[in-house]
Amino acid sequence: MEGFGCVGKRIPKIDAQDKVTGRSVYIQDLKVPGMLFGKILRSKYPHARIVHIDTSRARKLLGVRAVITAEDIPAVRFGFMKDQTALKAAKVRSYRDEVAAVAAIDPEIAEEALDLIEVEYESLPAVFDPEEAMREDAPLIHEENKTNILKLPWKLVAGDVEEARKKSAFVVEDRFKTTWVTHCCLGTDGVIADFDLRNNLTMYRNTQIPSLAQKDFNDALQAMGLKASKSRVIQPTIGGGFGSKLDTYAFEYIAILLAYVTRRPVKILNTREEEFRYTSTRQPAIIDIAQGCGRNGKLTFRNVLMILDNGAYTSWGATTPSVMMMPISSLYRVPNVFYEAKCVYTNNTWSQAMRGYGNPQATFAIDSNLDQLAHEAGFDPMEFRLINANEPGEVTPQRFKITTCGLEACIKEVGKKLGWEKRKKSKKTGARGFGMASLIHVGGGARVYKSDGCGTIIKIDDFGTVNVFTGATDIGQGAETVIAQMVAEEIGVLPEDVNIIDNDTDVCPWDVGVHASRTTFVAGNSAVMAARKVKEQIFEIAAGYVDRWKDKEGNKHETRLDEDPQNLVIRDRIVYSTREPEKKVDLGKILRGAHYSKGGTMIMAEYFYDPDNENLDREFKGNLSMTYAYGTHGVEVEVDKETGKVKIIRYIAAHDVGRAINPMLLEGQIYGAAAMGTGYALTERLILEKGEVMNANFRDYKLLTAKDVIPVEPIIIETIDQDGPYGAKGIGEPGCVPTAPAIANAIYDAIGVRIKDLPITPEKIVKALRQKQGETDSQ
Amino acid sequence: MEGFGCVGKRIPKIDAQDKVTGRSVYIQDLKVPGMLFGKILRSKYPHARIVHIDTSRARKLLGVRAVITAEDIPAVRFGFMKDQTALKAAKVRSYRDEVAAVAAIDPEIAEEALDLIEVEYESLPAVFDPEEAMREDAPLIHEENKTNILKLPWKLVAGDVEEARKKSAFVVEDRFKTTWVTHCCLGTDGVIADFDLRNNLTMYRNTQIPSLAQKDFNDALQAMGLKASKSRVIQPTIGGGFGSKLDTYAFEYIAILLAYVTRRPVKILNTREEEFRYTSTRQPAIIDIAQGCGRNGKLTFRNVLMILDNGAYTSWGATTPSVMMMPISSLYRVPNVFYEAKCVYTNNTWSQAMRGYGNPQATFAIDSNLDQLAHEAGFDPMEFRLINANEPGEVTPQRFKITTCGLEACIKEVGKKLGWEKRKKSKKTGARGFGMASLIHVGGGARVYKSDGCGTIIKIDDFGTVNVFTGATDIGQGAETVIAQMVAEEIGVLPEDVNIIDNDTDVCPWDVGVHASRTTFVAGNSAVMAARKVKEQIFEIAAGYVDRWKDKEGNKHETRLDEDPQNLVIRDRIVYSTREPEKKVDLGKILRGAHYSKGGTMIMAEYFYDPDNENLDREFKGNLSMTYAYGTHGVEVEVDKETGKVKIIRYIAAHDVGRAINPMLLEGQIYGAAAMGTGYALTERLILEKGEVMNANFRDYKLLTAKDVIPVEPIIIETIDQDGPYGAKGIGEPGCVPTAPAIANAIYDAIGVRIKDLPITPEKIVKALRQKQGETDSQ
Repeated sequence: MEGFGCVGKRIPKIDAQDKVTGRSVYIQDLKVPGMLFGKILRSKYPHARIVHIDTSRARKLLGVRAVITAEDIPAVRFGFMKDQTALKAAKVRSYRDEVAAVAAIDPEIAEEALDLIEVEYESLPAVFDPEEAMREDAPLIHEENKTNILKLPWKLVAGDVEEARKKSAFVVEDRFKTTWVTHCCLGTDGVIADFDLRNNLTMYRNTQIPSLAQKDFNDALQAMGLKASKSRVIQPTIGGGFGSKLDTYAFEYIAILLAYVTRRPVKILNTREEEFRYTSTRQPAIIDIAQGCGRNGKLTFRNVLMILDNGAYTSWGATTPSVMMMPISSLYRVPNVFYEAKCVYTNNTWSQAMRGYGNPQATFAIDSNLDQLAHEAGFDPMEFRLINANEPGEVTPQRFKITTCGLEACIKEVGKKLGWEKRKKSKKTGARGFGMASLIHVGGGARVYKSDGCGTIIKIDDFGTVNVFTGATDIGQGAETVIAQMVAEEIGVLPEDVNIIDNDTDVCPWDVGVHASRTTFVAGNSAVMAARKVKEQIFEIAAGYVDRWKDKEGNKHETRLDEDPQNLVIRDRIVYSTREPEKKVDLGKILRGAHYSKGGTMIMAEYFYDPDNENLDREFKGNLSMTYAYGTHGVEVEVDKETGKVKIIRYIAAHDVGRAINPMLLEGQIYGAAAMGTGYALTERLILEKGEVMNANFRDYKLLTAKDVIPVEPIIIETIDQDGPYGAKGIGEPGCVPTAPAIANAIYDAIGVRIKDLPITPEKIVKALRQKQGETDSQ
Repeated sequence: MEGFGCVGKRIPKIDAQDKVTGRSVYIQDLKVPGMLFGKILRSKYPHARIVHIDTSRARKLLGVRAVITAEDIPAVRFGFMKDQTALKAAKVRSYRDEVAAVAAIDPEIAEEALDLIEVEYESLPAVFDPEEAMREDAPLIHEENKTNILKLPWKLVAGDVEEARKKSAFVVEDRFKTTWVTHCCLGTDGVIADFDLRNNLTMYRNTQIPSLAQKDFNDALQAMGLKASKSRVIQPTIGGGFGSKLDTYAFEYIAILLAYVTRRPVKILNTREEEFRYTSTRQPAIIDIAQGCGRNGKLTFRNVLMILDNGAYTSWGATTPSVMMMPISSLYRVPNVFYEAKCVYTNNTWSQAMRGYGNPQATFAIDSNLDQLAHEAGFDPMEFRLINANEPGEVTPQRFKITTCGLEACIKEVGKKLGWEKRKKSKKTGARGFGMASLIHVGGGARVYKSDGCGTIIKIDDFGTVNVFTGATDIGQGAETVIAQMVAEEIGVLPEDVNIIDNDTDVCPWDVGVHASRTTFVAGNSAVMAARKVKEQIFEIAAGYVDRWKDKEGNKHETRLDEDPQNLVIRDRIVYSTREPEKKVDLGKILRGAHYSKGGTMIMAEYFYDPDNENLDREFKGNLSMTYAYGTHGVEVEVDKETGKVKIIRYIAAHDVGRAINPMLLEGQIYGAAAMGTGYALTERLILEKGEVMNANFRDYKLLTAKDVIPVEPIIIETIDQDGPYGAKGIGEPGCVPTAPAIANAIYDAIGVRIKDLPITPEKIVKALRQKQGETDSQ
């Protein structure tokens, strides 16, 4: 009875069969009786006054049930800064702006009706560059604010950077840039809003934040004057999130308003093109970074100034600087840190959360610049990282308490597997190079909201089926599977005995949402602790269990467990005495025995787990997470100097995961994240020209496809975290964080040029090589 | 803060709006993607050997997806005595017998395919009269049993009936008969069976027994060789049950088998005609009863012999004699009791549970015969009942512990309201008469299964919405509403704050089912006790609650509750100190305060309530229910001696209900039950000729319609039961129990003839009057 039965096993996702055979019901598949289809008319200008809207022709179209503009509906304000309404009234601030909406009996009629709506605009001067937008004479996006710089106080000061800079032996400073990328979920955004007769609202929505969305929708109902109404969020199967579904959006409120006006359920669903144009992006960042070190290679300071293009409105993603502070303050040991970020309104698409939540942008700058510093100071880049690697027991300048930390092991394992010692040899080929970069990320929740909690309810039936109602949301990452494994392990049943219920706010306890790589840790701890309560109940009952039965000859027998609860264990659905393992009873018998007797009982329990982490204080310090996930990616690239094409020869991804609950799923997370990170590094970008998306399709966006799959070799470092469920940390986001700097560093290693704005396209490489050649030639 | 906020209030059913506007989703409305439609071919004979079935033509019909006979499928045995399979193999035993089934893309094609199935039968001698079926030379329905009498040991002996009979001053004995009646649910039976890829089964089914049905379906999956499969029962809105949905039936297993064979969801739905022909009925009973009394009018003994027509197969309804024992042993005080019942197989439709579960049949005999005895002994019928009325503190011959008992009050109130003292005067009109009859019924659960329990889980969200997951089933009786009222009362919120979740075995805790008038009592106690746990958690948190806030001028304030938990109460969503009522805080604030803090918590609790009642022992004695509901109905009738038509002039129904949680719903139960009882008494019957239903429609069945509504005047007697939730007892069934004897007694009072077999049709009255006239004339 040693070791684990379920934890650590390579179990396929429990919803895999349903997904590959098309049985899973996505929002795309969902139909509700009497459902209408909503479509949204967007702005024709990046910045304009709305002079007049004529909806009369659209209203007359056969099959149209409602046409609404801001005039027709209550002004429901929403968003992180409450800076927008569902339909825009006086002016539009981006091409995304929602001007009118239609509900019709089919989507084609709704689309046709949009064409019949006539909007008269008066174009306004627009601004698309955040640095220009910060100028005093720049057009104001939100006049009432008097400035385009958001009132968000992102600033971290630890130690004395100026003083440290003076004392540094080596200092390198540079500017790095990233651009718009988008989530490319295969399951596009969609919603069905449905009112019942008492004006209670059901929202079918592929959201990552069922509980917070419920709150937003309740607020909207209040704003609509429906004081006694409540909302309920039901989540269909979700085809990817990556942060794109972490807010509530105009289209959701428009669906609500159309449903309210028509008294019919209304579905709004993004086409792929709409998804590209109207889904929020990762924030483009302009990052000025300086780092210094002593002659011993130890980092002395880090100074980061950042400008983020917020776009026309503000999402929860505007808080990414609070997460960017994490690598800036705590990736590698650095005693003096200064960071300041400005989020700036522009007439571009508005940006928001995306896997890593700012960390990929920040780490691209940090670990590229670190590589520069290593070279400047004459250290081998790997050795330089080892010198500065974080260690267990450390408290970082942001007051993060580093408990377990596998960074050193990650760096070393990557170096070993990549053959870092052969680096110089391989360099001789001229076009090949090695690079590495590391990451820190929250691995034990992240207290960005007032609660970082998750609730679980468990009930077990007579057949030993364990029904687990969890606040967790499965967006494809496998939450259901790892929770089932942990609950099965804790109780002592098989994963297939566990039935996860996770898609209905009426039934599932509260959870802050699927973000910050928190689900395995937070929902996992919640589930494990509820399971523990369940197990204790079972042991109490089992302790006195007596089964009286007759054999075929009619002889009477008694099976007695008669054991102290603390000497009991459950494995594979059987309750054993640890002192006398031959004393054992089938779990089902114990459950039925307890149930089918006078004054019977059944096993149920609930637990609300809120981690002991801290909201950042006014200085943005505090132990944000219960634990931190570290990792290092190492890459070997081959660069074609003629074409600038980069080929990834090998890709080693080592992660301190605490414990791998399911190594197969975990590796899946790493594969996917590394692919996403590689796209971010090399190919992907949403091209905006004067605020307008120019490449709203997968091909022109250059999403990596199956043929571009990179040969990721994952290395799992288990540090068995003291606070994690079975020692686990989160792993959802980390895999895409160090990819871009690792690749950039390898490219530099291969061809001696450093590309500092993403993506690192062949054009940029060729241009940089030519420039370098020019410099060399001119010397 | 005196009195109740929610309990005792006349609140409309919370699902009333959805039902009257057609929003409720019944099984009739439910569609599942890819769904096929199943139809069943029934026997053409009441008793025959199946020689050959040719399905080849049916299989070839376009749109048919499967045709199955017993040969094609595993023999899944089911039913209370496991005496049938889903499709019958060697022989058929009634016109209901399922011989083959079809799944097709629409119901019409399935129906057409049935016509193409050719079945060759060899007719067997049949028996339709239970007394004939008991003869040694009768054809055997189930040959393996060697007799048609079921091996069910229904016999109750208390005291010495023979001795008591000898000592009685007056004895009256007679034979009473009842025939087939059926439930006439407006929502006919239906099911959708749906397998997922792992062969887990979801059954959408308007069942009264979700948890027991789940067990049956799990057993079926095992029998089908699907060892690892599980079932889940989802209940759509249920349009009436009345006991008709207390078993699992052949059509459910056929849907499962068709779904398994076709790998598609399969829906089977009864048409109204099928509902009449193939739904089980109330058992017809032949009742020989004798009762005696002393000169003081006190009952001395009761002797009842009963023959029940079981039909061709055995349902849970075969256990109705265990409930018939209740009035036989415990309605009115009677020291010596003998009862024996034989359930007999015939080739008729098989019968089962129906509202009152045998009690209406038994009480018809008991209280008609009691009326005879009163007349024989020279007592006023009301006075005679008062002399023998049960009293609190009594232990009846069946060992029922009578705690609260309002029978005497019921008799007196009925007498008063009816104007019993005017009885003799009104008799002068010749055609008018008064009658009354009483009832006892289980009012605090009924331990007929191994568990009589019900579970509840409660979670409260930040907005103060109380989500209650209950095992209870709402079949239209209003369970959701009364549970919401009790939970709201217990916690101190409003009924509209309570959201009842009661339709999914994955989510809802176990419950034995909606029968035995047990839901208000058992599910109510379970919900109240879970709510109490919730309230205690709230008080613990509230006790230390401190709210710090600023007013408009910026002055700081603190709201402190700072009170011992035991001095707190909640009313209308506000937590008060009982010592200083001005100290109060909004419940929502306390909930959010507890949630939105470090180490936050949320309120959840669960409770499994299993009443402290007893399974009957081998002698069929034991305290079956936690409490007993009593009642008396009094009727004034006018009989047209020419036509035999009976008109109900007044109808007084007094019930000891413990406490009326919702008087409006309670009265609704009484109105409906009295109408059902009146139909049973006067008009309704399913006419079977040699086993074949001859009147499969509402008109010929003579269901009472709106124009036949009787003027029921309910009287609510509250005895505040010590064990009931807020003192409540069950009231679902009692209202239809004493109707027939009350009417029969009134008819006797009016015209001097007693009709002893139901229904009391005009023909029977005219015939009896002519016979009486003949007897008078011949004297």
